[in-house]
Amino acid sequence: MERRVGEFELIRRLAGRVGTAGSASPVRVGIGDDAAVTSHRGLTATSVDAIVEGIHFRRDWSSPDRIAARALAVALSDLAAMAAEPGEAYVTLGVPPESDPGFLELLADGLADAADTHEVVLAGGDTVASPALFLAVTVVGYAPEDEQFLMRSGASAGDLVGVTGILGGAAAGLMLLESGGEIKPPGPAVRDALISRQLDPEPRIEAGRALRGSGVTALIDLSDGLAPDLGHVAASSGVAIELEASLVPVQTGVAAVAASAGADPLRLAIAGGEDYELAMTFPSGRRPAIEHALEAAGSGLTVVGEVVPGAGVRLTLDGSPLPLPAGFDHLN
Amino acid sequence: MERRVGEFELIRRLAGRVGTAGSASPVRVGIGDDAAVTSHRGLTATSVDAIVEGIHFRRDWSSPDRIAARALAVALSDLAAMAAEPGEAYVTLGVPPESDPGFLELLADGLADAADTHEVVLAGGDTVASPALFLAVTVVGYAPEDEQFLMRSGASAGDLVGVTGILGGAAAGLMLLESGGEIKPPGPAVRDALISRQLDPEPRIEAGRALRGSGVTALIDLSDGLAPDLGHVAASSGVAIELEASLVPVQTGVAAVAASAGADPLRLAIAGGEDYELAMTFPSGRRPAIEHALEAAGSGLTVVGEVVPGAGVRLTLDGSPLPLPAGFDHLN
Repeated sequence: MERRVGEFELIRRLAGRVGTAGSASPVRVGIGDDAAVTSHRGLTATSVDAIVEGIHFRRDWSSPDRIAARALAVALSDLAAMAAEPGEAYVTLGVPPESDPGFLELLADGLADAADTHEVVLAGGDTVASPALFLAVTVVGYAPEDEQFLMRSGASAGDLVGVTGILGGAAAGLMLLESGGEIKPPGPAVRDALISRQLDPEPRIEAGRALRGSGVTALIDLSDGLAPDLGHVAASSGVAIELEASLVPVQTGVAAVAASAGADPLRLAIAGGEDYELAMTFPSGRRPAIEHALEAAGSGLTVVGEVVPGAGVRLTLDGSPLPLPAGFDHLN
Repeated sequence: MERRVGEFELIRRLAGRVGTAGSASPVRVGIGDDAAVTSHRGLTATSVDAIVEGIHFRRDWSSPDRIAARALAVALSDLAAMAAEPGEAYVTLGVPPESDPGFLELLADGLADAADTHEVVLAGGDTVASPALFLAVTVVGYAPEDEQFLMRSGASAGDLVGVTGILGGAAAGLMLLESGGEIKPPGPAVRDALISRQLDPEPRIEAGRALRGSGVTALIDLSDGLAPDLGHVAASSGVAIELEASLVPVQTGVAAVAASAGADPLRLAIAGGEDYELAMTFPSGRRPAIEHALEAAGSGLTVVGEVVPGAGVRLTLDGSPLPLPAGFDHLN
């Protein structure tokens, strides 16, 4: 039982990349002591997430820098879902003792690059031996002065339900990767777009930021899938949500992949998961302002349903009740 | 590639255990939204740590509640090493899909119990599928108003070097566990004490708290071992540390275990690791006050060396230079 990880130390590699935090940053002491030291006022949002080799990523599907970027993006998506400003990230890297040091260095560099992209300070990290490679990420975000975070719990009956972006691509991309070429997408560009949606998720930080003060009553990111995640909003808010299947925006190629695989295309779009878009509820009168704010943030809004009294998520197709796809009984 | 973990969700189990945080707590929203929300002023210390099955623990060595308590204790030790007040903890649990739900429930309950013991709020968590069971823990601590944390970087030539508690027990306990009964300790009570030192580490939070304002110039917890961890202090402070082997306090039974295993007893005591005591430097004039403060905190102080100009850790035995045990060349 060898507990040491050999020569590779994530924090040493990162410490070489990460400069001293600027005076505007709340990070007073970053990598190198027993703990990172920060100083800030106001509200702080903290979320933890992890990706594990063989479960959430595979080395034959993705490069180390993309794997690292995905780990950070998935964690940051939770901050976007609070309309928080990203602040610091802390990473625990679990490393099989026989790992290729070059792979791990690229992973660490990818982490540092992704942190730069999202303007997050990598303030701490740890490397432990592990039979399976994993990255456990903690992210901390802030509310600008006098602002509140957007929670899951404020949806009211009568509110509309909206979603950013287009859905189902990440799940279809995963099916393509897992099929090893057996499923035929409509063409190489569509294939690449679907696979990239799975491998390179983008946290909707700009969209979350744009929704501050917009009248949004509940906000969540789509990690489990539109229907399950709206189920979380419904449960937190004490309401039911009616989701109209015909309104759900679906990525090009998702239907073709589903058809080729004998899968239910609706299931991919409403319960595929990992699209990391944002879903929200809001009073109908705020719709124009929210559409405008999301467009200005490079995103967009599609209204897909409404909040009603009751509990759980109900699916409709052109207004008629539709049973939830198999495996989603737990939503009600 | 099944990404879901079946029925067990750490956060659901913990949410059932953890009450709403009290009004004195900085936790405004704990488990249940996209991120936990805290509100606090002053300095914050954040540290991440993880323990992995087969590397840091084994189910045939320890019960789920002890494994969970160990994960939290190891993380909290980093806060003790900053003289921080423990605040919140966030846990990511990596779970093999075929795990026994009863085992996981006991693990979650053990985590909640340990959080109660150390007066830490479990403010968030995540459960992910993983081939290897792991617990990745993030802990956040606070500095009381107008207080500073104690860092590794303030040691000066002329300072004394001290350590709390007795050393080598955790490493000897690990040797006993790994030998499967082949190594014979002096007796069952000694055996149990050594093994407990390995399986049930205690973060020295009280001792760290007692050292605030005491004149300590550098503080660190002993995770890697006395000599390697003093090496971190030396490097951070830009000094050398002379460590006198004859002064190092060694737990009863460590020498016997080492003799039985043909190991170097000195190596267990100065480089065994995982004792999670605190090592510190201070001007000699502060020694009586520090001894008194540590005794009042239920701990104690042993002076084991001094800070000198230079770099690295130098070992002496009765004042004469002693080569570092094999494998510790990297300290200099």
